[in-house]
Amino acid sequence: MGKHLVKFIPDNIEVMVEDDVRLKDVIVQKGIKFEFPCGGVGKCKKCTVDIIKNDRRINTLACQVMVKEDMVVEIARKDKNYSILDKGEERKVDVQPVIRKVKVKTSNPSLEDNRDDWSRVKESLGMEETGVKLNVLQDLPEKIRDGNFEVTLIFSGDEVIAVESKDTTDRLLGMAFDIGTTTLVGYLIDLNTGKELTHVSSLNPQTKYGADVISRIIYASQTKEGLEKLHEEVVGEMNNLIKKASGDTGYKPEDIYAVTVAGNTTMHHLFFKILPRYLASAPYVPVVKDSLTVDASEIGIKINPAGKVIALPNIAGFVGADTVAAALAAEMDRAEELKLLIDIGTNGEIVLGTKDRLFACSTAAGPAFEGAHISCGMRGATGAIDHITVGEDYKYTVIGNTMPAGICGSGLLDAVAELLKIGIVDKKGRILRPEQITNDIGMRYKERIRNINGIPSFILENETSTGKPVYINQKDIRELQLAKGAIAAGIQVLLTLYGAKVEDIKEVLLAGAFGNYLKPESACKIGLIPHELEGKIKGIGNAAGVGAKLVLLSKRELERAKQLSKKIKYVELSAVKEFNSFFANNIGF
Amino acid sequence: MGKHLVKFIPDNIEVMVEDDVRLKDVIVQKGIKFEFPCGGVGKCKKCTVDIIKNDRRINTLACQVMVKEDMVVEIARKDKNYSILDKGEERKVDVQPVIRKVKVKTSNPSLEDNRDDWSRVKESLGMEETGVKLNVLQDLPEKIRDGNFEVTLIFSGDEVIAVESKDTTDRLLGMAFDIGTTTLVGYLIDLNTGKELTHVSSLNPQTKYGADVISRIIYASQTKEGLEKLHEEVVGEMNNLIKKASGDTGYKPEDIYAVTVAGNTTMHHLFFKILPRYLASAPYVPVVKDSLTVDASEIGIKINPAGKVIALPNIAGFVGADTVAAALAAEMDRAEELKLLIDIGTNGEIVLGTKDRLFACSTAAGPAFEGAHISCGMRGATGAIDHITVGEDYKYTVIGNTMPAGICGSGLLDAVAELLKIGIVDKKGRILRPEQITNDIGMRYKERIRNINGIPSFILENETSTGKPVYINQKDIRELQLAKGAIAAGIQVLLTLYGAKVEDIKEVLLAGAFGNYLKPESACKIGLIPHELEGKIKGIGNAAGVGAKLVLLSKRELERAKQLSKKIKYVELSAVKEFNSFFANNIGF
Repeated sequence: MGKHLVKFIPDNIEVMVEDDVRLKDVIVQKGIKFEFPCGGVGKCKKCTVDIIKNDRRINTLACQVMVKEDMVVEIARKDKNYSILDKGEERKVDVQPVIRKVKVKTSNPSLEDNRDDWSRVKESLGMEETGVKLNVLQDLPEKIRDGNFEVTLIFSGDEVIAVESKDTTDRLLGMAFDIGTTTLVGYLIDLNTGKELTHVSSLNPQTKYGADVISRIIYASQTKEGLEKLHEEVVGEMNNLIKKASGDTGYKPEDIYAVTVAGNTTMHHLFFKILPRYLASAPYVPVVKDSLTVDASEIGIKINPAGKVIALPNIAGFVGADTVAAALAAEMDRAEELKLLIDIGTNGEIVLGTKDRLFACSTAAGPAFEGAHISCGMRGATGAIDHITVGEDYKYTVIGNTMPAGICGSGLLDAVAELLKIGIVDKKGRILRPEQITNDIGMRYKERIRNINGIPSFILENETSTGKPVYINQKDIRELQLAKGAIAAGIQVLLTLYGAKVEDIKEVLLAGAFGNYLKPESACKIGLIPHELEGKIKGIGNAAGVGAKLVLLSKRELERAKQLSKKIKYVELSAVKEFNSFFANNIGF
Repeated sequence: MGKHLVKFIPDNIEVMVEDDVRLKDVIVQKGIKFEFPCGGVGKCKKCTVDIIKNDRRINTLACQVMVKEDMVVEIARKDKNYSILDKGEERKVDVQPVIRKVKVKTSNPSLEDNRDDWSRVKESLGMEETGVKLNVLQDLPEKIRDGNFEVTLIFSGDEVIAVESKDTTDRLLGMAFDIGTTTLVGYLIDLNTGKELTHVSSLNPQTKYGADVISRIIYASQTKEGLEKLHEEVVGEMNNLIKKASGDTGYKPEDIYAVTVAGNTTMHHLFFKILPRYLASAPYVPVVKDSLTVDASEIGIKINPAGKVIALPNIAGFVGADTVAAALAAEMDRAEELKLLIDIGTNGEIVLGTKDRLFACSTAAGPAFEGAHISCGMRGATGAIDHITVGEDYKYTVIGNTMPAGICGSGLLDAVAELLKIGIVDKKGRILRPEQITNDIGMRYKERIRNINGIPSFILENETSTGKPVYINQKDIRELQLAKGAIAAGIQVLLTLYGAKVEDIKEVLLAGAFGNYLKPESACKIGLIPHELEGKIKGIGNAAGVGAKLVLLSKRELERAKQLSKKIKYVELSAVKEFNSFFANNIGF
C-alpha cells in the first residue's frame, strides 16, 4: 500500500497521498481551485478531471476516484467552465476544446542534468510519452530559451502541434463554420471563455457552378479541375471570412487554432476535395462518414500554421454533418420522449426517435420551400412576402418592409394554407374557378383569381416593386404538394419503422431558416407536418451552426456527434416499398 | 458463454468458436498456414499474432490465448518470417515492418446497403475505427471502383496512409540509412522477404561545410540559411541514393514506403532541420532524443508520397541514434554477461553493461583514429597502410594493393604498438634516439629514426606514390595517446559506475570501420582497450547500419531501440570528477 505521488497539471502541484484516499479530498485539502457543485456525491457530474495513465487520458469524476497508485491529474481551468450559446436552441456546454494550450516551466539544463529540451518539457507535463509534430521540435530550442524555459504548448488531443514562448494561454480562438449549399456562416469563438466574438456570413461562391448539390457534383465529376475549383472556391471564401472575423475583433488569423465545419455530405466532400461523384446516382454512396481531423494547412485553411480542421461526421449520402450538428444541438441523443427533427431545404432531412433509437431519412423535397421553381418565388430576402393572411383581413408582411417583389417559402406556405381555409383551393389542390367558390370569405377574393399565361392563378398583389403582379398559380401549388407530400411521407416511414404513432411525438424541432420563419399553423394546415402536432412545433434556428460551435467548444460534444452519426440509422427511402403509397396519400391537402 | 466469432485477417477467414477454446487449436483445425515450432507449449515464442480489440493491437502468442469473446486476429504471412542480415553481427529478425500492406475486398454497395466506401473498407479490415490520412479518402472512390472493390491499404502503425487499386502487396520496399558524419550508406530492403536488394553509399555532402560535427553545428547556427542548407544537402544526397538503389534493382522510388535513419545526434538534428546549436557548448543539450516518425514529404525525402521516415532515438548530445542502432545490433538489451561496445570515430562512444543496467559515455577521442591531424594520415582508402609489422619481418599491407600514400588509423595503431614492442617508443610515448635503443630487433631499424622538420620521426616507407616518405612522428604519437587515453578513461569511468572490474567484461564489440580494421593485439598493446580483454574483442561491422535495417524490418526492433534509448544511462564525462585523473593515468603506454 504505502503512499502515492499525485501530480496536478497544468498547475504542477505534487502531493504524496495515503493509499485509498478520495481524489476530491486531496484537491480540497491542497486548496486547489476546483468546484464540487453537488458537494462531491457523484450527482452533478461536474467535477470531471483527466487522469493520465500509460499515456492515455481517462476522463472521470474527481469525487468518485480513490487514489491507489501514482497518478497525473489534469484539471480544467475553472474560469472557463460554462458558456451559454445565444442562438438557436440554448445549450449549456463545458468549455473543453479539442485544441488546448498548456503552459509549462521546465528546469534549466546543467552539466549534471543535460537531458534534451523535449524530455524536460514532457517531465513538466507529467507525461512520459506524447505525440509531437516535427515543427514543434524545430521551433523548440529557440522558443524555450527566448522564454527562459517557459513555453506554451498547443495540444490537439494528445499531440503537441505547436509551441510558443512564454505564457500565451490567453490567446486561443476557434471558428465554427456552417457550410450551406447557398450560404456560409462562420462564428468566431474565444476558446478560453466560450464566448462568441462575432459571426460573419457570405454567399457560397460555389453557387456560380450550380444552385443545388447535384449540379455541383456533376461539375466536380466532369473534369479533373472541377473538383479542385469547387474546393478552392469554398476554402477561399472561408479564408475571407476568417480574415474578416478576426480583423473585426482585433485578432489575427494566426490566433485561431481550430476550425470546425458542418455541412451536407456534398459540401463536406467538396470542402475536403473528396470526389462526390457516386453521391449523384443510385445507390448514392458517399466516400466517408467519419468525423475527420486534418491539418488546416493540408486543405489551405489559413489560420495558425499548426491549426486543425475538424469536420463533424456524416450519416449518409443525403443526410450529412449538418443534420448531425442539428441533432446534437437538439440533443436527440438524450431525448427521453419521442422527438421529430426536420431540416427543410432543397432536401428535407428528418430525424425521429429517442435516446435509445434514432432513424433518419432524406426526402427530395425540391426547391419549392426555398422559393425556387415557383412563378413569383424568391429566397427569404428583402422584398419577399414572408407571411400572409387571406381571411376577414387581407394582410401580409414583406422582408425589409419594402414593396413586394415576390414570395418566399414561408409566404407560399401561408398563402396556400389560407386559400385552403377559405375554399379557393380544394383538398386536391385545385384553384377553383370563381363560379365554383361557395365559402363566404372566399367569395370576397373571387376577382383575384385569373388565368395568367393560361394557368389559373391567385393575385397576391398588383402594386409591386417590379411593376408586375405577385401571384401564385396552379403549378406552384403542385410543386408545394410534391414537396410537402415527400416530407410527410418521410415522417410516416420513420414512424412506421420506429413503431410509433403521430400522437407519440412530443416535440417537433424545425432547423434552418425556413423552419424558423414558417407559421406552424400553416405547415399543419397543408399537411407538411401532421396537424396533430401543431402545438408541439418549435423553431431552433441555425442548428447546424450551433452544432459546429458545440463541437468547437468541447471534445465531449465531438464525441457525442460521433456517437450520433453511428447511432442514427439511415433509411434509404428509395428502398422502402411503402414510401410511394405514403407519398401518393400525402399529395392532397 | 456461448460461441464467439473469430475473424482472421488478412485472409478474411471467419469461424464460430466455443467459449474457452485455445486460439492455436482454432488455427490448426481451420487449416490456416501458420507454424508452432515448439508445438504450442509457449516456449519458442514464435507463434505471435496481433489481436485487434477496441481498435488496439495486442501482440501475443497464439498458443497461449483462450477465446473468450469475439476477436479479430491478424496473422503475419508465414513466407516472410525470417531474415538473416548478412553484414556485421548476424541477427535473426521477424519481418514485421512498421509499414505494412493489407489487401481487402469489400462488399459491393446497393440501395439496401449504401454505406460509405470507408465504412465498407473498415468492415473488411475488421476494425471499427482506424486512423486515416485525407489523401486516402481523396483517392478511395476511384481506386476502389478501379479495383472492383478490391484495394490494398498501406498502414503505418494503425493509420492508413495510402490506398492502391487491387492487390499490390507484393511491392513493398524500405530503405535503411546510416547517416555518418562522413559517409552515407543506404540499404534497399524488400519488406516482404526481409532481403537486402542492394546497398549504396556516398560522401555526406555536408563535409563541404566542415569535416566534423562541431564545425557543422557552427555553420548551421550562424545564419538562418545555414541549417536549411545542411538539411537540404543531406536530404538531396539521400534522394540520389534512393533513386540509384531503386533504379539499380528495377524499382521506382514510389515503391519505397519507409525510410529509417540512424546517425549521431548532430546528423539526426540536421536531417530533421532541428537547430543543433546548443549541442556545441556546455551543457551540450540536444532538442530531442525520442524516436521520430514523420511524413517523408514533410522533410523532402522522395519515396512514395505517403511514405514515412522513422528515426532511431538518440541517447544524449554526443551519444546518438547511431549508438542506439549499434547497441540494438549487438543486442546489449539481452546481454546476460557484461559487454562493452565501442564505436570509435572522431568521438568514441562507449556502452557498458548487461540487460539489467547499461551506461554510455562519449569521449572526445579526436580524429587521430580517422587519420586526421596525423603527419601522413589519411582515411582508410586506397593507398593507406592499414596494417604493419615491425619485428623479425618488416611488412605492411596497403588498401587497394598500391604503393603507399599515407597511413590510416589501424596502420597507426599497429605502427605504434610494434615500435613499443621493439623498444623504439618507450612507455611514455617518446621516440628514442637511435643511440638509446637497446632491444635487439629495435636496433635493426635504427636508421629509420630521423628528424623531419625538427621532429623525431620513424620512416615507414620511402618509396611511395607521392614521392615523399610515409612516416609517423612524435606529434602523431602524442595525438594517439590523447585519443586512446580518453577512450580508456571512459571505459574506466563506466566500469567504476557499474561497479565491475575489467576482468568481468566477457565481450568487447567494436562497431564501425575502424573497429573492424584494427588489430585487437595492437589496440591492447597501446592500451586503447585494456590488455586483459585481448581475446574477447570482436568487430561487428557497420552496426549503425544493421540497427537501421533491423528497425526497418520489425516494429519490435523499433520498440527495442526505444527501450534501449531510455534504458542506457548517459554519463557526462565532463561532470565526472574522476575522469581527469583516469585520463592522465592512461596517457602513457
